Amino acid sequence: MALQPASKADYGAASLGLNVTRDLAAFLARFRYADLPEAAIHEARRSVLDWIGCALAGCRHPTLDRLLPVLEALSGKPQASVFGRGLRLGLLEAALANGQAGHVLDYDDTHMGGVVLHASSPILAAVLALAERDGCDGRTLICAMVAGFEAGVRAGQSAPDHHDGGWHLTGTLGSIAAGAACAKLLALDAQQTAYALGIAATQAAGMQQHRGTMCKSFHAGKAASNGVLAALLAQGGFDSSQETIEGKRGFARIYSRTAMPEAVLDRLGERWEITRNGHKPYACGVVLHPILDAMVALGERRALAPADIAKVEARVHEMAVRITGLGDPATGLQSKFSIYHAAAVAYLDRAAAVAQFTDARAAAPDVLALRGKIEVTVDPDFAKDEAAAVVVTASGERTVAHIPHASGTVANPMSDGAIENKFFANTTQTVGAERARQIAAMIWKLDKLDDVRDLIKLCG
Amino acid sequence: MALQPASKADYGAASLGLNVTRDLAAFLARFRYADLPEAAIHEARRSVLDWIGCALAGCRHPTLDRLLPVLEALSGKPQASVFGRGLRLGLLEAALANGQAGHVLDYDDTHMGGVVLHASSPILAAVLALAERDGCDGRTLICAMVAGFEAGVRAGQSAPDHHDGGWHLTGTLGSIAAGAACAKLLALDAQQTAYALGIAATQAAGMQQHRGTMCKSFHAGKAASNGVLAALLAQGGFDSSQETIEGKRGFARIYSRTAMPEAVLDRLGERWEITRNGHKPYACGVVLHPILDAMVALGERRALAPADIAKVEARVHEMAVRITGLGDPATGLQSKFSIYHAAAVAYLDRAAAVAQFTDARAAAPDVLALRGKIEVTVDPDFAKDEAAAVVVTASGERTVAHIPHASGTVANPMSDGAIENKFFANTTQTVGAERARQIAAMIWKLDKLDDVRDLIKLCG
Repeated sequence: MALQPASKADYGAASLGLNVTRDLAAFLARFRYADLPEAAIHEARRSVLDWIGCALAGCRHPTLDRLLPVLEALSGKPQASVFGRGLRLGLLEAALANGQAGHVLDYDDTHMGGVVLHASSPILAAVLALAERDGCDGRTLICAMVAGFEAGVRAGQSAPDHHDGGWHLTGTLGSIAAGAACAKLLALDAQQTAYALGIAATQAAGMQQHRGTMCKSFHAGKAASNGVLAALLAQGGFDSSQETIEGKRGFARIYSRTAMPEAVLDRLGERWEITRNGHKPYACGVVLHPILDAMVALGERRALAPADIAKVEARVHEMAVRITGLGDPATGLQSKFSIYHAAAVAYLDRAAAVAQFTDARAAAPDVLALRGKIEVTVDPDFAKDEAAAVVVTASGERTVAHIPHASGTVANPMSDGAIENKFFANTTQTVGAERARQIAAMIWKLDKLDDVRDLIKLCG
Repeated sequence: MALQPASKADYGAASLGLNVTRDLAAFLARFRYADLPEAAIHEARRSVLDWIGCALAGCRHPTLDRLLPVLEALSGKPQASVFGRGLRLGLLEAALANGQAGHVLDYDDTHMGGVVLHASSPILAAVLALAERDGCDGRTLICAMVAGFEAGVRAGQSAPDHHDGGWHLTGTLGSIAAGAACAKLLALDAQQTAYALGIAATQAAGMQQHRGTMCKSFHAGKAASNGVLAALLAQGGFDSSQETIEGKRGFARIYSRTAMPEAVLDRLGERWEITRNGHKPYACGVVLHPILDAMVALGERRALAPADIAKVEARVHEMAVRITGLGDPATGLQSKFSIYHAAAVAYLDRAAAVAQFTDARAAAPDVLALRGKIEVTVDPDFAKDEAAAVVVTASGERTVAHIPHASGTVANPMSDGAIENKFFANTTQTVGAERARQIAAMIWKLDKLDDVRDLIKLCG
């Protein structure tokens, strides 16, 4: 029996001597609109436009028809709008609903900085709920968005194995992003912001297990709601650990097998994470986008009927198979996780928008006929945004397409015009062409907007 | 370049061929009050009594004074009572507040089945909110509690490294427990119950990093709120993965480095987890209880002033140091994580109840004088519920106490009378002696109660 003397420093939540969370919080509380480069401001405009389009397209999804009656029964104080539904709920419920609507079509923006975070769904669903209650100008909204991107993406960089561990980052990092964004909108001080980060991070959840179910987009909504609650509690004097990200039992260490907490502070104030945001030309996970570019290109070159095709040889990065390798999707939600379905509809329809991932399209005879002929191989030399496809006819004729960088990535971004076209396609049916044009015009001048509630009124 | 052919089975959320979550859900939906052994029913009575006492003692804690104004501003529809505050909030807000109040004093029950879960705070805060809205009899409440214990504890058993990984199990497992309990209260069918487990688990969060801050008890409240939302969504037709616990990217695998999903089903229906619940004679973590038994015994034997004591030699299990090794607690909340503070007050006051863990007592001169003389060593041969202490006087006289099994454990349980005495001590100040007696009498006959709202009325 060897007795071991105890150290008094060995406290459950002991400090490791880093100041990562406090330094991040101080930065978030301190920066001003005038500090932002034009690239960050313009990307905020693009992201608001794209995200509101996604939310207005998603708001009538069957998932929302299940969610909203439950939230209505719970919510008594109408404080914020559910976009496109003519409905107002409490702040937490509206944030949840809009976050879910923004993500349900898998069409919302995706960060390209090594962290697979769909940041705008949790961030904007959260801050727009608060903005509707309190009012704020466009520049305050832009600062809040920027703060959310910084906190969410950088927390993700502190936890390199976070995605591989099975987490859905839009739930986990989304909570932190939404909490930071709301803290900025509420103009919390550095200490309160550190607490808001702590309260947000300790609600962070969402498993990849739920891909293809209603829970996937619920993660985005819940993250938004968690963020609103975190910032309001911090404003109300609620505290948390000061070392939420870097502590011994903090975010980086418990949500990842390796931890790099100091990465949070890397080039803070120089590299603005929002400038590395990407947008989706297709309504499914970004890992599918390069092969969809290839299939659309092949379909546009020569549209064969499935019966005339012997096989399609698809070559992709391994993630496209690992995340979206489902062979026989039965529903629209599941079809977003099937490279076979997605490649088939992209060829047949020369598109992979909302209409290509419905229950009906997942069961359509032409799609089933073609998806059975698609053979997928992993090319270990391919980058994540790279793919190639060959259509082989019955007579053995081969047509080839190779995509070095998928559209919508930082290397091959969607133009402002393409984002605006996507917005109109997403919104015209819900709000009408005239109101869609008004919304777009207002967002392109977001930094000049005196009261964000004018924008929200058009979206309600 | 070696191309790798992809398997169509390699779907992100692929099945592993187990039916753990579905089988658990089917069991939870199926069992009836008549299936329960008397030991489970009686432990439900004891747990309700003890927990309501903790909530009524905790409801005036400063943490609640920060929480409640924020929740009141968010909540518009008064549906459920915040115990002891004369306040009604929405279901989610009331569940959050009562869950936090039940746990804030670290005085609530602790499961003794290898999973450190304070189950009643999330479970009862959740189901009592629903019971107040809908009404139900005492037997339905007991069944809901039993279901919550089964799901929460068994999910924990599927993830053996979950606690060591840094998670606060009352937040994580508490969400699952609360979701299962609410599903049972709402009489959801097997399929809906599986979804409720999925929606609850995908909100599961809470880091140990926040020990000693307001977030620790927030985890219990948030778990309760998550569980209510999960069950209501499942009732409303919301879906989730069917393999939430055992799936490739499910609970057991992402919340733990080793996974034993099949443990969930071990002796299901034979071993009722609620029968292994423990109760706290002291208002702090169970890892401290054996040394507190020793210090109380020493203080009762001979109460020396700190000046007359040369040193105290404390020997404990390593967890007591790892979790509660803080040397210099500055606040009442922190003092619960200081074996030095706790051992000192237990000796001086012959108690370690709520009054021993206040900001004032953490700064009291007699406590500071004695805690500086306490030397802690880890004894690798000690069980978790074992400790020894020696008080050494200035003249070298040694008084020894050895505790083989701490009070409040399964091996040395608190008697019904001791639990009732703790309840009266916890509640008399908040609700008065007469009402406290009425509440206790009603809970001892919980299985005969026609409408749980009669009980809730007495606690509001």
